[in-house]
Amino acid sequence: MADKTEIEEGLAFAPQFGADGLVTAVVTDAKSGDVLMVAHMNKDALAQTIASGEAWYYSRSRKKLWKKGEISGHVQRVVELRVDCDQDALWLKVEQAGEGACHTGRRSCFYRAVPLGQTGAVKLEFHDADKTFDPKAVYGNP
Amino acid sequence: MADKTEIEEGLAFAPQFGADGLVTAVVTDAKSGDVLMVAHMNKDALAQTIASGEAWYYSRSRKKLWKKGEISGHVQRVVELRVDCDQDALWLKVEQAGEGACHTGRRSCFYRAVPLGQTGAVKLEFHDADKTFDPKAVYGNP
Repeated sequence: MADKTEIEEGLAFAPQFGADGLVTAVVTDAKSGDVLMVAHMNKDALAQTIASGEAWYYSRSRKKLWKKGEISGHVQRVVELRVDCDQDALWLKVEQAGEGACHTGRRSCFYRAVPLGQTGAVKLEFHDADKTFDPKAVYGNP
Repeated sequence: MADKTEIEEGLAFAPQFGADGLVTAVVTDAKSGDVLMVAHMNKDALAQTIASGEAWYYSRSRKKLWKKGEISGHVQRVVELRVDCDQDALWLKVEQAGEGACHTGRRSCFYRAVPLGQTGAVKLEFHDADKTFDPKAVYGNP
């Protein structure tokens, strides 16, 4: 690993990929500021994103590089890409094309809240959970 | 793992901790919407956060549970806690006490941007990188 001070205070981009070859990517809507999704990038996904200005990720479940929106058309134009202090996380502010980012048919993947101030089993609450598109129509049947 | 439909559409909170026992936590400023930091929670950190309404994390470098602000006083009151579709990521909207969230002395950990539309070596650019507090005064010397 490079020097800690250089990683934190320097201007050399030195993304710290984990043992799995990935960095975490947080994606927010450039207009609303809402978190749309959390995804992962490998070296290729990051290079494609920087070169094209559109978001590419690495799918851990499908074990492949994917361009966001390649099937749905819901591409993400990157307005700004930032890296955090220790360079192991990225923040993408995006313009989200189409009706949403989540494969369940919602604008954001974060459509359930965890109530606070309690212990024991937790029951979630839907927040902003209305579907904005029909995932079957967009992705086809699995 | 529980049933995929239940995880995505149900109201049972079933956080999907990774092989390392952690879930990713994205922290945004409840007022500005800016991403302040990305951290990790183990089961205990999550339970403490839910019970207290203040943010607790698990430090991968120090290998211990920590309450954000326990040294600096820069605690985070959780305004809302959300979970994503596959329940392996959390989003905390917080009121950040004190002058910032980042151990480098800035409000946010994301104070450098990656310029887009290029290939090859990347030189970062400082964005919102002014220090809002003196980390040595707050954390002491390492």
